[in-house]
Amino acid sequence: MKVFTLVMLLWAAVLFPSFSSELPKVETWDRFEVSLAGPKTENAFDHILSAEFYNDNERIKVDGFYDGNGVYKIRFMPQKVGSWKYRTSSKVKSLNGKTGEFLCVVATGENHGPVQVADTYHFKYADGERYYPFGTTLYAWTHQPAALEDITLKTLEKAPFNKVRMCVFPKYYSNVENEPEFYPYVKKGEEKGKTGKTRFVWDFSQFDPAFFQHLEKRIDDLKDLGIEADIIIFHPYDKGHWGFDSLGKENDLRYIKYLTARLSSFRNVWWSMANEFDYIKTKPRDVWDIYTKTVVNSDPYKHLCSIHNGSVYYDNWKPEFTHVSIQNGSTVEDFGRATLLRDVFFRPMIYDEVCYEGDLPQRWGHLSGEEMTEAFWQGVIAGTYVTHGETYKNDGDTIFWAKGGRLIGSSPQRIGFLRKVLEEAPGPLELADPWKDHKTATAGKGYYLVYFGKEMQSEWEFNLPKKGGPAANKKFRVEIIDTWDMTVKRLPDIFEIAEPVEYRIFDKNRKKIKLPVKPYLALRIIEE
Amino acid sequence: MKVFTLVMLLWAAVLFPSFSSELPKVETWDRFEVSLAGPKTENAFDHILSAEFYNDNERIKVDGFYDGNGVYKIRFMPQKVGSWKYRTSSKVKSLNGKTGEFLCVVATGENHGPVQVADTYHFKYADGERYYPFGTTLYAWTHQPAALEDITLKTLEKAPFNKVRMCVFPKYYSNVENEPEFYPYVKKGEEKGKTGKTRFVWDFSQFDPAFFQHLEKRIDDLKDLGIEADIIIFHPYDKGHWGFDSLGKENDLRYIKYLTARLSSFRNVWWSMANEFDYIKTKPRDVWDIYTKTVVNSDPYKHLCSIHNGSVYYDNWKPEFTHVSIQNGSTVEDFGRATLLRDVFFRPMIYDEVCYEGDLPQRWGHLSGEEMTEAFWQGVIAGTYVTHGETYKNDGDTIFWAKGGRLIGSSPQRIGFLRKVLEEAPGPLELADPWKDHKTATAGKGYYLVYFGKEMQSEWEFNLPKKGGPAANKKFRVEIIDTWDMTVKRLPDIFEIAEPVEYRIFDKNRKKIKLPVKPYLALRIIEE
Repeated sequence: MKVFTLVMLLWAAVLFPSFSSELPKVETWDRFEVSLAGPKTENAFDHILSAEFYNDNERIKVDGFYDGNGVYKIRFMPQKVGSWKYRTSSKVKSLNGKTGEFLCVVATGENHGPVQVADTYHFKYADGERYYPFGTTLYAWTHQPAALEDITLKTLEKAPFNKVRMCVFPKYYSNVENEPEFYPYVKKGEEKGKTGKTRFVWDFSQFDPAFFQHLEKRIDDLKDLGIEADIIIFHPYDKGHWGFDSLGKENDLRYIKYLTARLSSFRNVWWSMANEFDYIKTKPRDVWDIYTKTVVNSDPYKHLCSIHNGSVYYDNWKPEFTHVSIQNGSTVEDFGRATLLRDVFFRPMIYDEVCYEGDLPQRWGHLSGEEMTEAFWQGVIAGTYVTHGETYKNDGDTIFWAKGGRLIGSSPQRIGFLRKVLEEAPGPLELADPWKDHKTATAGKGYYLVYFGKEMQSEWEFNLPKKGGPAANKKFRVEIIDTWDMTVKRLPDIFEIAEPVEYRIFDKNRKKIKLPVKPYLALRIIEE
Repeated sequence: MKVFTLVMLLWAAVLFPSFSSELPKVETWDRFEVSLAGPKTENAFDHILSAEFYNDNERIKVDGFYDGNGVYKIRFMPQKVGSWKYRTSSKVKSLNGKTGEFLCVVATGENHGPVQVADTYHFKYADGERYYPFGTTLYAWTHQPAALEDITLKTLEKAPFNKVRMCVFPKYYSNVENEPEFYPYVKKGEEKGKTGKTRFVWDFSQFDPAFFQHLEKRIDDLKDLGIEADIIIFHPYDKGHWGFDSLGKENDLRYIKYLTARLSSFRNVWWSMANEFDYIKTKPRDVWDIYTKTVVNSDPYKHLCSIHNGSVYYDNWKPEFTHVSIQNGSTVEDFGRATLLRDVFFRPMIYDEVCYEGDLPQRWGHLSGEEMTEAFWQGVIAGTYVTHGETYKNDGDTIFWAKGGRLIGSSPQRIGFLRKVLEEAPGPLELADPWKDHKTATAGKGYYLVYFGKEMQSEWEFNLPKKGGPAANKKFRVEIIDTWDMTVKRLPDIFEIAEPVEYRIFDKNRKKIKLPVKPYLALRIIEE
C-alpha cells in the first residue's frame, strides 16, 4: 500500500523542522493523504476544505472531503519529485491553516503514472511507456458480496484486460438486481411507492463514507493489477429502484464534487461522465456540459475524460473530452468502418461497447467468441481500441459483465494474444492507406499487420500500399498469424520490394505466399 | 430575367411619390438591384457602400460593390412580400443617402426560394417544398469557351442533377489547363518566374467585374434550370500558375467580401468554403475559421455553408456550417458506413466527392457506372446524399468533371431514376434500425425501401425491423426495383404483419418473394 495517512501530530513538525530525511516519502503519481480532525456535525459534508500543495515552481489547489466520524481528508497526487509543502484552507477553524511537507521520490516498479493521450489517437503513461487499452466491462462488480469481488480480482489477475468500465452507483437491471452491501447515501427509512413497492428513502445531504472507502479499495486493487478504472459517474440503470439516476441537478453537482475530491488523486482513474448518457431520461442534454466542466475543473490532474452514448452521440469534440468513448457494435463488425468515426475527432477512439460475447437473447448480448475477437482486430488495425464484455451465465449465475466472477468465454485469451502482438509492434497501428485499404495497418516504416477477417484464400500475393511505403530493394519477412489458434508461423521466404505499380508495392518477382484456407488470419510483415 | 436594374433617376421618385402600383415588383427570393453612379477612380473597389432595406418589421443591412465603369451596385433578396424601402450609406457623397422602394410579390412557377436545412439531416426550399440534393461536379465549367459552356447547360437541362459544385477561381490541373476568357483580377503584365516560365502579374486591388458578371450569368442560367450552385470559394488547383490560391490573408478577405456582396442575393447560391481545404498549403488551418465567419457574417440570408476536405476533415461541428460536405469514397462503397459519419454531426451529410465515374488511371477517376450508381443508393438509404462526377474523356476531350460538355457515363440516367424513387417517397429516408440493419430505409410509417447492393439471392423472406415498425395485421405491397435496368415491378401478393419475433417483423404466413438473381435490386414496401 502506497497510501500515506498523516494523523496531524503537529508537534512533530515543530520538533523536526527541516530534516528532509524524516519527511514522509511518496512516489511520483502515488497518493499523499492529509487527515484532519474536525467537527462531527450534521452538516459536515457541507464544510468546504482545500489545500494548496506547492514546491518552488508549482502551486496546486486540491479539494478535501469529509470521510465520516469527524475525519476530514485531503489527497494529493504529486507529479514531480522533490519536496512538497501544503497549507489547508477552510472556514472551519480546526481545518484551516494546517501545514506540512513530504518528499516525492522517483516512481518504481509498475508505477508508470496516469494514462494520457499521445500521438493524437493513442495513449501513453505519464512516464512515456506505451499504453494500449484492452478494456472489459464490469458495471456492478464493486456492489457484490466480498467473496465474489475477490473472485473477480483473481480473474482479472490472469485476464488480458488493463482497463475496467465500472459504475460508481449500483446497477438495477436484468441479471443484476441484488442489493449491494454499501449505498452512496445514508438511508433515512423506507416508504411504499405508488405501485405499492417498498422504496428506500435517502438523505441526499449525507454521503456514506463506507461506500466510497470500499470503492476506493477496489480501485486500488485494480491499480495493483495494472488496470485502469474507467469510472462511470452516472448511468441509467436504476428504473426508480433507488433513484440515484434522479438526484436533481444540485445533488448531482454535490456528488460530482465529492467524488472528484475523493478520487482525483488515484492515478488509475479515468472519468466516464456516463454510460449511455442519452438513456438517462432525467438529465436533459444540456446538463452534461455543466457536469463535465465540473468534473474537469475539480480534477487538478486532468485524468482522461469521456462520455459514453446509448443510441445518440454526444458532442465528443468538446474540449473537456480527452478521447471518444463510443457504443456502436456495427463500427467493428466489418472492414472500413472503425476508421471513419475516428478520423472526425482528432482524438483516441475507444469503442467501449460493441456488443458482448455471451448467450443472452438480446442482440447486444450474444456475440460469438469469434465475433468478439474479430471486433478487437477490426478496431486495432484501424488505429482504434475496443472494449470487451461477457454475458454468459457463468458459475453462480453471475454474468461477468454485470457482477464479475469468472470468465468462461473464448475471446479473452485471443484478446490477450492480440494485445501481445500489438505490444510487440514498434508503436501504435494506423491504417497505411485508410481511404482504400482497410486491411493493412502499419506501425511506421518497416512494420505492417494485414488482417483478413472472415475472408479466406489459399494464396496471397505480397503487396503493400504505396502510400508511405518502403523504397525499392528493401527486404521483408512475413509471419502468418492465426488470430484464433493464436499461432505465429514465420515463412522462410524473403520478399524484396520492386518499384511501385500505381497504388501498390509488390515483390520484385511478384512472389506469393500460400495460406491455410481458414478465417481470421493476419500477416505480420517486417523489414529485415 | 427577374433582375431589376434601377438607374437612379431620383426625379422619378419625386414625381410619383406614393403610387405603389408604380413601384418595381420583385418576387420573393428574387433579386432587386440598385445601381448608383459614383467615382471612377483607382481605389473604387475600396469604397465602402451599403444599404439598409426595411419594411415595418425588419431592417436588413446589405453591402454593395463596385461593378466597374463608375457603377456601384447593391443587391437584395427580399424574403417577405410587401413594400420594401432602402437607404444607402457611404462615405462617398454620391453613393450616400440614396433611397427607394419596391414591392415584393408572391413567388411564382419554379421559384421555391433558397434551400435550407430541414428535419436535422435533410433539406427543404424556403417555401417548404422538399429538396433532395443530387449534385454533380463541374469545377471549371464557367472558365471555358462560350460554346462549351452552352453545351454544358444543354446537358444539364436533360441531366438529373439539381446541384453543381463549381469553383469561382479558374482551375489549373491535369485535364484542365486552358486559360479562361475572364480572370478575377486585372492583369498588370507578365514576368519570367524562377523556372523561366512566363507568369501573369495581377493587380490584386482591382477585381475584373467582367469575370464576376460572367459568373453571375452562369449562376442565373443554373437557377433557370432549377439547379443550386455550390460555389467553391477557394481551391488548391493552381500550382503557382496564377497564384489565386496564394493571395495572402488580406486579399483573401477582400475577395470574400467582394464575392459575398455580389452573390448573396442569388437564391440558388450555396457557399463551399473550399474544395479540399487541407490541400491548400498556403492557408493554415486556423484561417478557415476567420474566412468562414467572414462569409457567414457578410451573407444576410444565411445561405447553406460547408467546407470540403481532402484527406483530413475540418471541424464540421462549428456553428457556421449548415451541413457537412465530405470527400471520402469509402463511405458509400459498402453497407454500414455512410450512416456512421452522419450521426456524429446532427446535420445533413453530403458525400460531395466519392470518386468519379470514368476511365482516368487515378483511382479516384475510374468508378464504373455500376459503382457510381451504387454509391448513390448506399448514401440515400442511409439518409445521406451523394454527388456525382464524370471523368471520361468525352467528345472534344473535355471531361465533364473539369470542363463540362457532354455526359457519356451510364450512371446519370440511374441517378435520375433514384431521384424519382426518392421524390415519390412520402419524405426523406432514414435507416429504420441503423445499428443492425444497413439495408432497410424508411420514410416514416408505411414506407420502406430495402436495397441489396451487389448481393444476389433467389428469394427473400418478407421482413422488416421491429424498431418503429408497423403493428400486427397491417398490410403491405411490395415492388421489386431494378436500380440498374430502372424498372419497377409490382408483386401481386399482399403481406400481412404478424407479431414481432425478437427484432424483426414477418408476414403472418412467413411469406417469401422470388427475386431475379441479379445485383443492384431494391424493394419498395408500402402499406396498403
